Amino acid sequence: MAALDLIKSLSIVTPSKIILLVIDGVGGLPRPGTGGTELETAKTLNLDRLAGTGMCGLSNPIGPGITPGSSPGHLGLFGYDPVAYNIGRGVLEAVGIDFPLEPGDVVARGNFCTIDEAGRITDRRAGRISTDKCVELSRLLNGMSIGNAKVLVEPAKDYRFIGVFRGTGLSAELADSDPQRTGVPPLAIAALAPAAEETARIANEFAKKAKEILAGHYPANMALLRGFSQRPDWPTVSEIYKLTPAAVASYPMYRGLARLVGMNTLSTGGTVAEEFETLAKNYKDYDFFFVHIKGADAAGEDGDFDRKVAVIEEIDRALPVLSGLQPDVLVVTGDHSTPAMLKAHSWHPVPVLLYSRWCRPDNLSKFSESACRTGGLGRISATDIMPLAMAHALKLNKFGA
Amino acid sequence: MAALDLIKSLSIVTPSKIILLVIDGVGGLPRPGTGGTELETAKTLNLDRLAGTGMCGLSNPIGPGITPGSSPGHLGLFGYDPVAYNIGRGVLEAVGIDFPLEPGDVVARGNFCTIDEAGRITDRRAGRISTDKCVELSRLLNGMSIGNAKVLVEPAKDYRFIGVFRGTGLSAELADSDPQRTGVPPLAIAALAPAAEETARIANEFAKKAKEILAGHYPANMALLRGFSQRPDWPTVSEIYKLTPAAVASYPMYRGLARLVGMNTLSTGGTVAEEFETLAKNYKDYDFFFVHIKGADAAGEDGDFDRKVAVIEEIDRALPVLSGLQPDVLVVTGDHSTPAMLKAHSWHPVPVLLYSRWCRPDNLSKFSESACRTGGLGRISATDIMPLAMAHALKLNKFGA
Repeated sequence: MAALDLIKSLSIVTPSKIILLVIDGVGGLPRPGTGGTELETAKTLNLDRLAGTGMCGLSNPIGPGITPGSSPGHLGLFGYDPVAYNIGRGVLEAVGIDFPLEPGDVVARGNFCTIDEAGRITDRRAGRISTDKCVELSRLLNGMSIGNAKVLVEPAKDYRFIGVFRGTGLSAELADSDPQRTGVPPLAIAALAPAAEETARIANEFAKKAKEILAGHYPANMALLRGFSQRPDWPTVSEIYKLTPAAVASYPMYRGLARLVGMNTLSTGGTVAEEFETLAKNYKDYDFFFVHIKGADAAGEDGDFDRKVAVIEEIDRALPVLSGLQPDVLVVTGDHSTPAMLKAHSWHPVPVLLYSRWCRPDNLSKFSESACRTGGLGRISATDIMPLAMAHALKLNKFGA
Repeated sequence: MAALDLIKSLSIVTPSKIILLVIDGVGGLPRPGTGGTELETAKTLNLDRLAGTGMCGLSNPIGPGITPGSSPGHLGLFGYDPVAYNIGRGVLEAVGIDFPLEPGDVVARGNFCTIDEAGRITDRRAGRISTDKCVELSRLLNGMSIGNAKVLVEPAKDYRFIGVFRGTGLSAELADSDPQRTGVPPLAIAALAPAAEETARIANEFAKKAKEILAGHYPANMALLRGFSQRPDWPTVSEIYKLTPAAVASYPMYRGLARLVGMNTLSTGGTVAEEFETLAKNYKDYDFFFVHIKGADAAGEDGDFDRKVAVIEEIDRALPVLSGLQPDVLVVTGDHSTPAMLKAHSWHPVPVLLYSRWCRPDNLSKFSESACRTGGLGRISATDIMPLAMAHALKLNKFGA
């Protein structure tokens, strides 16, 4: 946290502009027999040219050997130490559906579940009901007024929803109602601090009413709550970096994360070309753009090496839309690696490319994991990327005299 | 601070000798069209030979993206974490003119300023009076005895001076008299802690007398004080490293910084050859030498690429004076980069060369930013340099059994 305080004390407003292009899961592993990773296999003339005039390196999202989830992966890229800046589970679920949490909201993850006649849980996931069913049932529970709180219920995926308690003076110091096992009834929600007693009463009243409302909807005849948390009161991107930030992301999770650190989220189509076009249209109104491309990660998780190559090539073809805007700093990187060979996020360090006229250039001929290994950015932490981008945009004052 | 404790617990006295040659602002950026930085453009046969038998790397003075001032840049080179070891503004000004602060001295930065008949500040810099005028006025204020304190006033540059309160039991817990704006009178100097009340009384009495003395010296008819601070009580280079250290520096700021960490400062002429000669003459009396060459930074700040190249070449020509002494460790580096293209200090990592017979040699053919990128020292923090120098001088015991 001290690191953000230092940056905050040095950052200044200038007309210069920064684009942070995040190719989700960009880092990979070689396909056996070929020796080339997804990025090395892709034909990326525009990225290669940028690497030739800019600087490259490899970044660790969390630390050597640590595989990040999407949320810590992005927080690191935004400069927030992802271990120190931890998001509560309820908030994370809300972020995942880009639900506009307000300050003070207490949010819990919810599961629709099955209980028997004695009230004992028989299935914590209600037979994995469909998302459609989840939407229908969430609507039944949504909008209760209990005490001085309003309870909002918003469907997520399958049997999952979020419960948002909105009112004044609420506290998230609450234990779960979900006992995390079957054969026992849901737990009464206990206050973990005296200040949370009224919120516990409200949450228990909600659970009671939910049970009544859901009684006829077997197998989803009850709701469990866990991970009560509040939107963290973190310094925003505007406060730390004095930037006017915009996020271009079509997936809710990434819009939610961007919103959590105070970025404006722009409406956008979901293709690479559409996202870049959205940025171009809004270019004059902001001085920082976070652009998120999901496809490479999705292909990696599917183990589809060729599709991941194709997504990277699609980004490369569209890149002139961004570089043509002549941003003062253009960073291309990922939030983590997702090697198709692993079909999962991984701990492998992530290629980073930083272009600016104030780079000490590497003269590399390719944007790739192996070229990045020899690049002038060296081996960095993901949290170093924003300070480096700020420096190259001449947005950081000197430290000390 | 923990890092210094570790080194302190391991360091031993040996006959071996270390020279730390600091080429201020040595790191650069390529001159457009040529592709070479100042260091890469300079003909540096001696440095290149040293790089061939030693090790090279790149160091971050503070952290990625952070541009250091001279003071944190040097503290890092001396092994002190420059963010943790912070110097008060008054002390920094005193250091800048190499004023010999004594333990317990309370020092403030001073401005000569202009006040109107109602006592309101109309110009915080007294029309930027000349340094000559500043010397003359400082003399008028110098030497007051107030309470049990003596007040020393020493001119700095232009309208700036330092006020040093010397006596027993003084405290620097004082608020500024400088309101940092015009149209209001100077503030009474407030004690920020009960222990500072007597010092506040003395400082206010000084301000009152200064007003009387300066009354006829419009536009410099008043003095403002700010940044009250005391010489930090840090472990010295002798305490941490058990070295007998000498500084060879012709600029007051660097002599002051060296003094602050307990180095002896040697009288010297100001050319590169003269500084090296000073070191050679005193070689037998010390086992650690900090040699500071200012010219490269000054040329960089002026945007004079060719002059910076010339200074580096001048150093290279004189280098045999140092290497001929056959020090056990010779480090050549800078406190930060000062690219002529930027005309300012910058955040770019700084080339480091460490020669010792105990190096694992890199076999590089050139001392340059791009060669350093591939060197065996890797990417280090400036605070790593002293431990590495100590190790290669066989001055650090094993840690643990």
